[in-house]
This record gives sequence, C-alpha cells and structure tokens, in this order.
Amino acid sequence: MSALFSDRALRRAGPIRLAVFDVDGVMTDGRLYYSENGIESKTFHTRDGLGLKALMRHNIQVAIITARQSGIVSRRAGELGIAHLMQGREDKRQALDELLIELGLEAEQAAYTGDDLVDWPAMSRCGLKCVPSDANHWLIEQADHVTAHGGGHGAVREVCELLLAGQDLLEAWQESFR
Amino acid sequence: MSALFSDRALRRAGPIRLAVFDVDGVMTDGRLYYSENGIESKTFHTRDGLGLKALMRHNIQVAIITARQSGIVSRRAGELGIAHLMQGREDKRQALDELLIELGLEAEQAAYTGDDLVDWPAMSRCGLKCVPSDANHWLIEQADHVTAHGGGHGAVREVCELLLAGQDLLEAWQESFR
Amino acid sequence: MSALFSDRALRRAGPIRLAVFDVDGVMTDGRLYYSENGIESKTFHTRDGLGLKALMRHNIQVAIITARQSGIVSRRAGELGIAHLMQGREDKRQALDELLIELGLEAEQAAYTGDDLVDWPAMSRCGLKCVPSDANHWLIEQADHVTAHGGGHGAVREVCELLLAGQDLLEAWQESFR
Amino acid sequence: MSALFSDRALRRAGPIRLAVFDVDGVMTDGRLYYSENGIESKTFHTRDGLGLKALMRHNIQVAIITARQSGIVSRRAGELGIAHLMQGREDKRQALDELLIELGLEAEQAAYTGDDLVDWPAMSRCGLKCVPSDANHWLIEQADHVTAHGGGHGAVREVCELLLAGQDLLEAWQESFR
Repeated sequence: MSALFSDRALRRAGPIRLAVFDVDGVMTDGRLYYSENGIESKTFHTRDGLGLKALMRHNIQVAIITARQSGIVSRRAGELGIAHLMQGREDKRQALDELLIELGLEAEQAAYTGDDLVDWPAMSRCGLKCVPSDANHWLIEQADHVTAHGGGHGAVREVCELLLAGQDLLEAWQESFR
Repeated sequence: MSALFSDRALRRAGPIRLAVFDVDGVMTDGRLYYSENGIESKTFHTRDGLGLKALMRHNIQVAIITARQSGIVSRRAGELGIAHLMQGREDKRQALDELLIELGLEAEQAAYTGDDLVDWPAMSRCGLKCVPSDANHWLIEQADHVTAHGGGHGAVREVCELLLAGQDLLEAWQESFR
Repeated sequence: MSALFSDRALRRAGPIRLAVFDVDGVMTDGRLYYSENGIESKTFHTRDGLGLKALMRHNIQVAIITARQSGIVSRRAGELGIAHLMQGREDKRQALDELLIELGLEAEQAAYTGDDLVDWPAMSRCGLKCVPSDANHWLIEQADHVTAHGGGHGAVREVCELLLAGQDLLEAWQESFR
Repeated sequence: MSALFSDRALRRAGPIRLAVFDVDGVMTDGRLYYSENGIESKTFHTRDGLGLKALMRHNIQVAIITARQSGIVSRRAGELGIAHLMQGREDKRQALDELLIELGLEAEQAAYTGDDLVDWPAMSRCGLKCVPSDANHWLIEQADHVTAHGGGHGAVREVCELLLAGQDLLEAWQESFR
C-alpha cells in the first residue's frame, strides 16, 4: 500500500499529531440533498469511520472545521468520537489557529484535507495538505497528496492510512485484524 | 485552467453580464428522488455554490429558469443569494426575454447552461451556450462549451470559472485565497 | 444520433405502438433507498420524462409493468401521464398479455425494456427487447439493443429516441425545439 | 458467465451451504445517508434481492452479520426472507462461530463477503472469501474472489451467481426464465 503514497507525502506525514478535515466534498461527496419539506441530508462513508477511529487510537487527534452548520455533522462526529468539532467557521484559518493553540501544536504537526479554495488559507499553513481526487483543480495543484478516492468515497480513509503509513503504523494495524 | 477552455468559449464569455442556469440536470444530476410519503428531493453540489457567489461578487448576475416548481429550488436560491428565480416556466424563451428586458441586457450578454431540448429555444439566443458533459446528445452538438463535469457534479462551477476566465478574473479570484 | 442504433434495432423499432418499461433498474438505477422510519425512496431521471412524453405525443403508448408495488411509481406515472400502470405483477408475461389484448396489439408491436431475469418471460415475446447498459449479464446477451446509458441515468430516454428514430420521427422532434 | 469466475473460486464455491454478507459496503455502497432530523438511510440494490432468493431456493442459507444496528436492515432482511440476521455484532468471528454451531456447518461450508478489515477475523476462517471491487485494498489482496461490481451495485448478486455456478446451478436457473 505504501507504494501508493509518495516519499514526500510519507515524510510529511511523519510528525503529524492532528488531522483536520473539511466536511462537504471531503467527508461527503459534496452533494447537498435538499427535500421539499426543508430537510437536508449528507452522505458519509462507512470505511472512513474505521480510519478515523484508528487515528485516534494511535493518538493522532482528529478535528472537523467547516463553514456550514449542521446537526448532521454533530451526529456523525459524536458517533466517531471526534472531540474537536468546529462548525459555522467561515474563517477556517482563525479556527485552525485556535485549535493549534488549544492543543499546543505547531502547524507542521497538522494535516489538512480540503476540497475547495476556502480551505486554502488554513490548509496552506499545515505540514501535510491533502485533497480528494475530485477536488477543485486549483487546490489539486497545491496539494502534497491527491487521494485516489473521491470525497465521501474513501478519501478520508486514504488520508488516515497515509498518516499511519508515514508513522510506520499501517502494516501493524492491518495485521492486527488477522 | 484557462487551457481547459477553448479560445472561442473564452471570447464569448468576455461580454457576459448574466448567467442563466437550468436546475434539473444542470444544478442537479437530473435525478428526481421520490419517497413513499410524497416528498421529493434534489441534490446540489457544494462547490457550485462558491462559483455562483464569485460571479455575483464580480457583478455578473445569476438567474435560474426552470419548467418545474419546487420549494427546494427556492431554498437553494435563497441560500446562495440568487435574485432572479423563475420557476414553473415551460416557455423558457419567454422567461429569458422578460429577464433581459428587466435587466436591460442584450441576449449576447447572457450565458445559458441547459441539459435538454426544452432549454434550446432560450439557450439558442444567448451569447454563450454551455452544457454539462452528460447533457442530451443533440444539445451537446449545438453548445459553445461542454463542461468536463456532469450536471450536479461541478458543471455549474466550471461555467462560473469560464466566465471569470473570459473576463480575466479567474486567476485573481483564486489567488485571493492565498 | 441514429448512428448509435443498429440497423436491426431501428428496423424492429419501426412497427412499435407500445413501449413497456420495468421500474427498478430501468426507470431507476436499481437502488432502493430505505430510511430508518420505514420510508422507501427511488430516483427517476428528468430527461427520461421528456422522452416518454414525446412517445405519447407521437401515439406510441407507454406502459409500466413492475413486480413491486409503490406509491412512488403511481406518482411518477401520473406526472408523466402514463395511462397503463401495472404494479404488483410478479407474472409479467400475464400482465403483458392482458395489456396487448386491451390495446388490440400484437407482441411484435411492443418494445420491452427490462434489467433482470424476471423480465424475460414477457420481454422475450416482444418485437423489440432493450436493456440498460448495467442490466443483468444474461439478459444483455439476449437483447436487441443495449443502451449506452445505465438504468435511471437515461436508458429510458435512449429507448424513446430509438423508437422515434426507427419511425423517422427523431430528427423532426429535435428540430421542433429550434 | 462462468468464465468470469476463476477455477479456484468455482471449486471453493462447490461445498458452500451458507452465504454470509456484511451490510455497509457490501449490500450497500458504504454510504451512510444522514438527514437533519436524525433519520438515517441506506441503499440496497434490486438485483441483489433476486440472487439472494435464488440461493435460498437452492438450499444455500443466507445470513447477515453486521457491527451496526438498524431497523433498515431488519426490514430488508424480512422482505427477502433472510432468517439469520445478526446485528450489533462487533465481534464478527464470535457471531460466525455461533451461527456455524447453530446450523451444524463447518467454516469451509461458509462463504463470507465483506469490505473492510473488521470483517477479516470472521472471513478468514471461511471456505470462500469474497470482496466487492471497491473494498478496502488490504482485504482485496486476501480475497478468493473480487467481484466486478461494487458494493450496493450488484456485488451480492455476483457472489450469489458464483455460488450457483460452482454448484452447476447457474445455467439452469437462468434458463428457467425462458
């Protein structure tokens, strides 16, 4: 598997202690389901969940920073045990700064996965910048790692595996299921 | 990015002051979600929203003309701040004519993105005719620009970027996120 | 466009007066959306609707024969003005026979689009047998025409255009939107 | 069709009396639909249902083992007549062991289809290990058969046909619809 990750991405994944994820287009496929009765839905991916739990079990903290506000995200974050949930934050850089101070971490210790231009001000500061395969084209050009999977279709899981691989934890984690 | 747009499309994008979009098959992937309790749903794409907002911020007006009628579209239009929402308009050409008069614009100053034959009577008059990659085959043959993305999967965003690119605004917009 | 249709399929489309469609996997992509509160949903495609209306306007009758029973299908059929709706019919051949008698048509005058083995007993009798690109592999081998589009993603529209093309009506229909 | 199955997979399918399926990522495409009002949805595939019914009619038992708990799965299992439904079982190996004892079967007589690492402890014991085309990459490397279809898009149907083919029942079943 590690063959799927470039040496540069693996090297940058080494010191990461915090993995930050955007929601729409990263944890989801970017689609906003609107129904006539005013109810909105989003779709998450089951295999992303296992990856996020593995990060937390290996003491890599997980955070969500999103400009939108939704009870859906609160529910998913709660289910997965994600402690750092920052919603309604249009200024993602400010949110990231607060989070880094709270956790006593440097930006080089943070990985950021985003899919669009609004993620860049925060993302650009981080040690590892990841984008889903179907992200905005400009953002793709700036990224350290473009996942083989699209947003909401395993992109998050792949970033989790990159972090584990960069810290020599991926193989042991996989083998623990034998 | 501009390399993705033909010289002809970019030239036609230059004078555009109004961008008109169909809903089903353009802002959505054309799928109509029907549930047993009579509730209908549609799916929009998060990255389309950022593009539409960018158009409006650069004084290119945005309009929706659709034959169907749905509270879903009203909600999405409201969220994005789209002022010109024309629903239940089976005669799209008539709707376009009214809109052009109201805004004091010529048809050459309008871009139209549609996905099916019913869009053609209005679309054919406009200065720039765009279709999603998965539009009706006949309409694809008539279009000035066929987006690389499908309806509801970023086609709208791509049209927004084409308009910005044709007016030499795209690069500056992208760089504003640095 | 007619280039997309084989001579054999076009020839068989010539005498068709009735177009029968299965629902799940043909008018939809075969996915059954189940929600926790017991509500089921299906997704239809907007461009299929225009094709079905064109058939009816050209005096080719449209029927739905499905083994399942759902208010969703009643609603969609009503919206499109499909008069012949046969739900809960596990024996599709029996349903087809009844329909042919009612309409005073021969089986050679019927086109049937299905996606799975249960459609075959009825389908095999008909003058034109169509399957979506993602139908069951065995059924694909038996079909007169395999659509380029998948079920729920335009397969129905393509069958409608095949019928119009086989009766030299397609081009005029498309040109009527000019 | 049997050409799609390797000799090794067909040989292993021969003695199978029990087919076990995971839900998310196998019977579904792995997507978890969450709506603002707290309602979760999943999507099953219509053609999978016909395959599962064929297994049961040919006296191959069908079971579902899943770590999550959902009324959606109960409903789908009930509809299809699946007697062995084990939900909320994080320890899938323990669940499998109980099931084998209850049915008086050996692990070599069981086929297991899963999509992620948590399936492996149970899956690894079974006579035939299948994964959808879009399963976790590590699991794909361990599998006896990787389906051509993705989870929720016909992977289950393909496993059903593999089992029937390995027991020389597939052709007769298909021909029974003539």
